[in-house]
Amino acid sequence: MDLATILGVICAFSLVFIAIFAGGGLQLFINLPALMIVVGGTLGATMISYPLRDVFGVFNVVKKAVFTKSISINELIKRFLSFAKKSRKEGILALETDLKEVKDEFIVKGIQLSIDGLEPEEIRDVLETEVDFIRSRHQLGAEIFTTMGTFSPALGMIGTLIGLVQMLQRLDDPSRIGPAMAVALLTTFYGSIIANIVCLPIAGKLRIRSKKEVLTKEMTIQGIISISNGDNPRILEQRLQAFISPNEREVSGKYG
Amino acid sequence: MDLATILGVICAFSLVFIAIFAGGGLQLFINLPALMIVVGGTLGATMISYPLRDVFGVFNVVKKAVFTKSISINELIKRFLSFAKKSRKEGILALETDLKEVKDEFIVKGIQLSIDGLEPEEIRDVLETEVDFIRSRHQLGAEIFTTMGTFSPALGMIGTLIGLVQMLQRLDDPSRIGPAMAVALLTTFYGSIIANIVCLPIAGKLRIRSKKEVLTKEMTIQGIISISNGDNPRILEQRLQAFISPNEREVSGKYG
Amino acid sequence: MDLATILGVICAFSLVFIAIFAGGGLQLFINLPALMIVVGGTLGATMISYPLRDVFGVFNVVKKAVFTKSISINELIKRFLSFAKKSRKEGILALETDLKEVKDEFIVKGIQLSIDGLEPEEIRDVLETEVDFIRSRHQLGAEIFTTMGTFSPALGMIGTLIGLVQMLQRLDDPSRIGPAMAVALLTTFYGSIIANIVCLPIAGKLRIRSKKEVLTKEMTIQGIISISNGDNPRILEQRLQAFISPNEREVSGKYG
Amino acid sequence: MDLATILGVICAFSLVFIAIFAGGGLQLFINLPALMIVVGGTLGATMISYPLRDVFGVFNVVKKAVFTKSISINELIKRFLSFAKKSRKEGILALETDLKEVKDEFIVKGIQLSIDGLEPEEIRDVLETEVDFIRSRHQLGAEIFTTMGTFSPALGMIGTLIGLVQMLQRLDDPSRIGPAMAVALLTTFYGSIIANIVCLPIAGKLRIRSKKEVLTKEMTIQGIISISNGDNPRILEQRLQAFISPNEREVSGKYG
Amino acid sequence: MDLATILGVICAFSLVFIAIFAGGGLQLFINLPALMIVVGGTLGATMISYPLRDVFGVFNVVKKAVFTKSISINELIKRFLSFAKKSRKEGILALETDLKEVKDEFIVKGIQLSIDGLEPEEIRDVLETEVDFIRSRHQLGAEIFTTMGTFSPALGMIGTLIGLVQMLQRLDDPSRIGPAMAVALLTTFYGSIIANIVCLPIAGKLRIRSKKEVLTKEMTIQGIISISNGDNPRILEQRLQAFISPNEREVSGKYG
Repeated sequence: MDLATILGVICAFSLVFIAIFAGGGLQLFINLPALMIVVGGTLGATMISYPLRDVFGVFNVVKKAVFTKSISINELIKRFLSFAKKSRKEGILALETDLKEVKDEFIVKGIQLSIDGLEPEEIRDVLETEVDFIRSRHQLGAEIFTTMGTFSPALGMIGTLIGLVQMLQRLDDPSRIGPAMAVALLTTFYGSIIANIVCLPIAGKLRIRSKKEVLTKEMTIQGIISISNGDNPRILEQRLQAFISPNEREVSGKYG
Repeated sequence: MDLATILGVICAFSLVFIAIFAGGGLQLFINLPALMIVVGGTLGATMISYPLRDVFGVFNVVKKAVFTKSISINELIKRFLSFAKKSRKEGILALETDLKEVKDEFIVKGIQLSIDGLEPEEIRDVLETEVDFIRSRHQLGAEIFTTMGTFSPALGMIGTLIGLVQMLQRLDDPSRIGPAMAVALLTTFYGSIIANIVCLPIAGKLRIRSKKEVLTKEMTIQGIISISNGDNPRILEQRLQAFISPNEREVSGKYG
Repeated sequence: MDLATILGVICAFSLVFIAIFAGGGLQLFINLPALMIVVGGTLGATMISYPLRDVFGVFNVVKKAVFTKSISINELIKRFLSFAKKSRKEGILALETDLKEVKDEFIVKGIQLSIDGLEPEEIRDVLETEVDFIRSRHQLGAEIFTTMGTFSPALGMIGTLIGLVQMLQRLDDPSRIGPAMAVALLTTFYGSIIANIVCLPIAGKLRIRSKKEVLTKEMTIQGIISISNGDNPRILEQRLQAFISPNEREVSGKYG
Repeated sequence: MDLATILGVICAFSLVFIAIFAGGGLQLFINLPALMIVVGGTLGATMISYPLRDVFGVFNVVKKAVFTKSISINELIKRFLSFAKKSRKEGILALETDLKEVKDEFIVKGIQLSIDGLEPEEIRDVLETEVDFIRSRHQLGAEIFTTMGTFSPALGMIGTLIGLVQMLQRLDDPSRIGPAMAVALLTTFYGSIIANIVCLPIAGKLRIRSKKEVLTKEMTIQGIISISNGDNPRILEQRLQAFISPNEREVSGKYG
Repeated sequence: MDLATILGVICAFSLVFIAIFAGGGLQLFINLPALMIVVGGTLGATMISYPLRDVFGVFNVVKKAVFTKSISINELIKRFLSFAKKSRKEGILALETDLKEVKDEFIVKGIQLSIDGLEPEEIRDVLETEVDFIRSRHQLGAEIFTTMGTFSPALGMIGTLIGLVQMLQRLDDPSRIGPAMAVALLTTFYGSIIANIVCLPIAGKLRIRSKKEVLTKEMTIQGIISISNGDNPRILEQRLQAFISPNEREVSGKYG
């Protein structure tokens, strides 16, 4: 997913820059006050709409969504298979040593609860609550970016209106009309770029990312419950594979 | 939340004003008739859409949403823990003295009903009804601001059309065309500002605020019911913590 | 509600007229063919969309919504309290004389059904069906006005396109370009006014009005059922007050 | 319904034509290539979106919706009353002769199933399935017209862009600029007309028509089930009248 | 469905090309950098929004949707009838030879599961899961095309803004203004074409296609369950025909 984002950013921005350079150079398109009004105004309107902590927290969510490598689902299934086999042979307490190598805190917590002797339904309750908070944090992130993607073109237009009103008041020097209008249009340009190449695509990615992460967490919960119930590894594998599309499945064949 | 709104307003408006001053001064952008047509027209259309009392009531809702400090959720949990411990030791009647220090009328009412001997389910009914009215008052507020944010750009455009029609009828003096168009564009400018920096962000804030307040009220109801049932403080704490995200939880550890 | 509509109309239109007069007089903005194309075209498109009877029926709905004084909810509760007391003392037949003074046909019908000896559930069925029809008539009204508010700017634009095409064909006399464009813009102006100051606000009002009227009718049904069941007046009052927000409640205190 | 459509079409188009003739004649607004690009492009985009059979089938749906006279609901009630009385007196087989005069195939089929001895629930199943297909055919029709009403302004704009690009390449002869732009605007004009006076209103009418037809069919099913159950005609009348608004009801008074 | 797509593409594009050629030739409308910014920017924004695999996988989905001939539903019914008859006469194992001629892997898999002795409910579970994945793959495809149809006009506008800003900076040579604006408008033109003649219609087709394919699969599941249950062929036919509209049904008449 990482790669797609990077490729997408490069692809979209490089083409915009090529068009800009081909037509006379970057300096025509750099205007700090114009950029400030769009970026600052959008941030301002977003800060009125959402609590401060959520607005700044959103950058963390993005960082995680773009840079965290998503766990391979087939890896996950393999891990749970090996847990299940060990747990059936040596008892669930034997998993405690394996937990030290597991980086995913969600799995560690779930297995630990199982080792601590909680009933499967209690474990599910605790973990589902955590998944609900993950889901609502992602949704809030996607929502904030959608909001920013709605405000930024509007603020671009406000900036252009300011420029137009100023230009129209002094039409006496015709040679300045063109450049003044060009500058006025820059805020609309910035607003469009921010909305369509930054905010709205990121909102889309967060939505997709959230779906996938929640699915992985649901699989993990299913796996932990299965181990906690002492299910046969074969049944565990079937349960987990029901979460993934048929052509993504790997047949393991090796359960005891 | 207070802070975010203030910062947002400062951020958005200061950048707009900087752009305005940088380009020649504020006087180009002040036009009372233009402002009146946008503000008055928007208010007029909103008054046709909603009952008078709701339109004016909305300002109260905003004042509350922006200036009321929201209760710390961890504070709330602590308060209920202390209530629960006292109630189990000395009986629920002992809470009557504590109520005098509580400012939140909703808590006072709930505990009072419990002291008066109502059944937990009756208390829940009474309090849930009140939460329903709080929720619908907030939703109405958010809806009215969204409506105003839809009407204000439309009235901005109507004002600009009036200006354009007037200008186009007297094209004989070319030197007046520019300033006349600038004035005509001001209503569109006002409409955009009112919609995108005032009304729509406030509607967003009311929606978020409402969610949070309703959640707090739901927690309060849960706490009152738990005390009314004589639940163990440990169980009460677990029930209340299920309402907040895992990383916001504070472990209290001190219940008897 | 009456008042809000009148104030809103005055507020919105007076500001538009002030802007028009300030800029040179009303005659620039009166153009009968332009008005006809917007109003007639909108009505035409609406008549294709909805049955003739519904389109014309909508004006009745508006008349009622604007001019009918809504019943005071506290009045309604008082009336039902007095009915309930009388009915418990003298039997439900005693209400027959009171009905002559009641203007609300819905109450008369409900009480009459109760006097006629129908079971409470049957009364509820009959009255709920009537409320469903009231609700769907209001919704249809709001929907038709929303449709008109969507078509009128579109027809305004069509009118402006007609004017532009005609103007562009004879650019030889530059002095006529301005006035011709001004006239062309008038249809867009009319379309915006009709949509944003007339149709969409009225659609909003019908929606709000409908909610309130349906709530009143639901309260009425609850009251009639309570009387029909011979409920204690105290219980009847509690049941009805659950329909209104806590700070609108009046405590009566006087039931036997 | 027939009448409303015809009046609406006349009203909307005649005003457009008056505006066109008043401003210099129809020939300015006739441009076959412009019309072809809008109509053909809209049809093309619609054919990519929907199966060929559905696109052409939609015209049948419209023809039926506009030209079929809807059955009077009071007529329908009367017919079922007479069926019910006859069926109770002479047995359901006696209805076989009456069916020959009935044009509505849906009624014929339902009564025939009853005569054939199917259980009421089986009859309901068969008829409800048919109503589902009627409903989905109407919905598809409304959806296709909404799609066309979305594509036609877009294709109008594409046509105008083609015209503008061509015009801008040869600005050397100023006298040709005006007429060239006029022609370029014609596609936008056609697109708006097709969307707002043709496609979107028809989509609206199909939606309303569908609701009404489905309601009539539901009434018919209720009537057939009642007859099949041998219900008392009085009860049958009450059941059917629950489908229509109180002020549309006719009291029959004459059941045996 | 194949045919409709091809006809639609030919119809829409040929009219656009006719308009282009009639007005001076294709070379005015070919501009590689403009095309690159729209296509590349749209792809880039889409790649940020969706995982790389999904973006490229979407072309496979389209290829399948456009080129795969959909199975005749009546054929499907006939096949299941012959299966059912054979299975009742010779036992379900006899179907194993027939499976070799069946190309539809979904049917093969279902019948094979039945031959393998799974319970009907287990077979349904396995097949329903597969249908869920087919449905979500189609929905993802339609969603990606809708996203591209939203980004491409936005990127067209960004390209036009770049061109306008560059042009406005050098207004000194009036003869270059026209052609420069023409080129600037080309990106808007490309964006509109890509959205309205390519992406949005394809999204529509995928949605329709998906509905139909899922319906066919549901029928197939019903048929396999019926055979697995050893239902009478007559009942199987009735069950399957409930999936298709009455006037599409063919009466077979020939079941044993």
